[in-house]
Amino acid sequence: MKTVTVELGERSYPIHIGEGLLEETGELIKSSGCGKTVLLVSNSQVFLLYGGVVEVSLKQHGFQVATGIIGAGEEHKNLATAKKLYDLAFTAGLDRRCAVCALGGGVVGDVAGFVAATYLRGVPLIQLPTTLLAQVDSSVGGKVAVNHPGGKNIIGAFYQPKLVLADTAAIKTLPPREIKSGLAEIIKYGIIWNPQFYAWLEENISGLLAGQPESLAQAVQESCRIKASVVEQDETEQDLRAILNFGHTLAHAVETLTRYRVFNHGEAVGLGMAFAARLAANLGLLPGREAERITALIRRGGLPGDLPAGLPADALVAAMRQDKKAIAKSLTMVLPAAIGRVEVVRDVPEEAVRKLLSSS
Amino acid sequence: MKTVTVELGERSYPIHIGEGLLEETGELIKSSGCGKTVLLVSNSQVFLLYGGVVEVSLKQHGFQVATGIIGAGEEHKNLATAKKLYDLAFTAGLDRRCAVCALGGGVVGDVAGFVAATYLRGVPLIQLPTTLLAQVDSSVGGKVAVNHPGGKNIIGAFYQPKLVLADTAAIKTLPPREIKSGLAEIIKYGIIWNPQFYAWLEENISGLLAGQPESLAQAVQESCRIKASVVEQDETEQDLRAILNFGHTLAHAVETLTRYRVFNHGEAVGLGMAFAARLAANLGLLPGREAERITALIRRGGLPGDLPAGLPADALVAAMRQDKKAIAKSLTMVLPAAIGRVEVVRDVPEEAVRKLLSSS
Repeated sequence: MKTVTVELGERSYPIHIGEGLLEETGELIKSSGCGKTVLLVSNSQVFLLYGGVVEVSLKQHGFQVATGIIGAGEEHKNLATAKKLYDLAFTAGLDRRCAVCALGGGVVGDVAGFVAATYLRGVPLIQLPTTLLAQVDSSVGGKVAVNHPGGKNIIGAFYQPKLVLADTAAIKTLPPREIKSGLAEIIKYGIIWNPQFYAWLEENISGLLAGQPESLAQAVQESCRIKASVVEQDETEQDLRAILNFGHTLAHAVETLTRYRVFNHGEAVGLGMAFAARLAANLGLLPGREAERITALIRRGGLPGDLPAGLPADALVAAMRQDKKAIAKSLTMVLPAAIGRVEVVRDVPEEAVRKLLSSS
Repeated sequence: MKTVTVELGERSYPIHIGEGLLEETGELIKSSGCGKTVLLVSNSQVFLLYGGVVEVSLKQHGFQVATGIIGAGEEHKNLATAKKLYDLAFTAGLDRRCAVCALGGGVVGDVAGFVAATYLRGVPLIQLPTTLLAQVDSSVGGKVAVNHPGGKNIIGAFYQPKLVLADTAAIKTLPPREIKSGLAEIIKYGIIWNPQFYAWLEENISGLLAGQPESLAQAVQESCRIKASVVEQDETEQDLRAILNFGHTLAHAVETLTRYRVFNHGEAVGLGMAFAARLAANLGLLPGREAERITALIRRGGLPGDLPAGLPADALVAAMRQDKKAIAKSLTMVLPAAIGRVEVVRDVPEEAVRKLLSSS
């Protein structure tokens, strides 16, 4: 078991990474000092795979378990689902020391996290991420949310988990497309923070795609370390944390315009990162060959490096201005200045964006 | 204008107290650095009285104002109302720097505060409390919430405002029963923290009841100072902050059992404090004459010092165990050891509670 600690004073917490960790859920939650009742949130597919292991482990350590099964997919990440979970928490008699456990991917983690953040003004949140994407991104760092009809993650909070258990054995059961989706965020960490890690990824991308356990564990650990470093310096996204959104401004716009039906999140981030790299090169921020290294690794990771045809530039630019991080609707993007270093650029020249969108 | 500062590091904020302060809303919000759009939340009655003044002041200082009028009364403090406000915030195009302003009493402040805490993971919250109760209690300290069908304030957050403007002129338009309700919390501050302030209240209670402006401003200032001291030491109710719930365990139980129809919040707190004082005397924690001083001031404040007949002790005790602060359903109460000092007592002997409930 490898452990990365997110150092946030009173809100510090460990991320444990290792094969078969879900079997130790009960023991690890018990030693974190949580109360005797647990609300275990999952979707039916994930629950069929891992619910039994987790429930047995919890019960063996004296926990009473209430189970909240939510619908799979982004369309269930809403206030109505949160309301159902509040009802379950109330019926189960959760008090302020009792945990909400999120067993699943990003949707489960985000909505269960929002419920944990707001039930009784906050109860302990335990993240049990079962997708590569959730292990390296959504389960770490304390952003929780539900969607609003007007946009993704519009209603949410900054709320740190008490504990994250990333069981790398769960990655084995993922479809290849899901592994690639996680790889997009892993590649992102290299670009925004660590050129050595990026070079390591260039060497190990095939092993990662093939699900090689050692490589995956190392990639998860390094990704969590980088995310922890960023979150430690800027928990509530005042400035630095925005760099984690590298590739995401266009990704969110594409997801919105294609109604989340064409690309999964990692794929959208892949094409968003490739676009940002090319834009940075066009603006003279990034050497052209570095932009090429970025698009090459994205493609080797099985991710789309280009925008699909038929998305109108006007609508994309309008959606990019809607980003939550935007101030007064300026066009703000995270652009690479080198592999390992990005900058938050306010007032990106719209003309350059349109030109590149049209030529893609 | 008097100012009390709540010192919470990066989350510090001023409470300004003074006559006619609502006219300066625009100027004061502008100097706090908020963005150009404001969501002004109120109920229709309060908005008719003060909405014009506030809106004019905001517009004079260049703000665009979207107005969210919510229903009056506790039954509107729910997720459905929050959802309407999210929709308005989205339509108005609030970004992360734009404020939600809560103009009204506790219900408006709590639900608008919850929306501010969760919209885009948190936007600035400006409290413009117009009731005495809200000025001395709910607008200060950062507890925001909506109700769940199962109980009050079950869904919420700890989220500090950026600014509180307590316009003491607003108190003049309150019905006498509302002033008494605020007095209950003011008396509470004397009992839990400051014997000199309590003695001052004993001397000035008639002036306060008569709405004497100087006395009211002084009482609001001292109450905010005490609440600030407590919140500064324990923002998220880990231990000390529980003393603010003096009188509230029974109050919440009585409110629940009478479905909020018989007593307003201050009245329920009044009888809860008188009960706690008598219980403390019966348990040998508090000298009998101090308990008498407490019930005497509560009665002089026009508040009920006794439980109404007909509330079954069983149901009251059961409801008292449901308190959010309760751990594993133990009977926890805040009991006075002297005027100016209270203790959080876990495992209060149920027999003593039942005996006193039955004899009341």
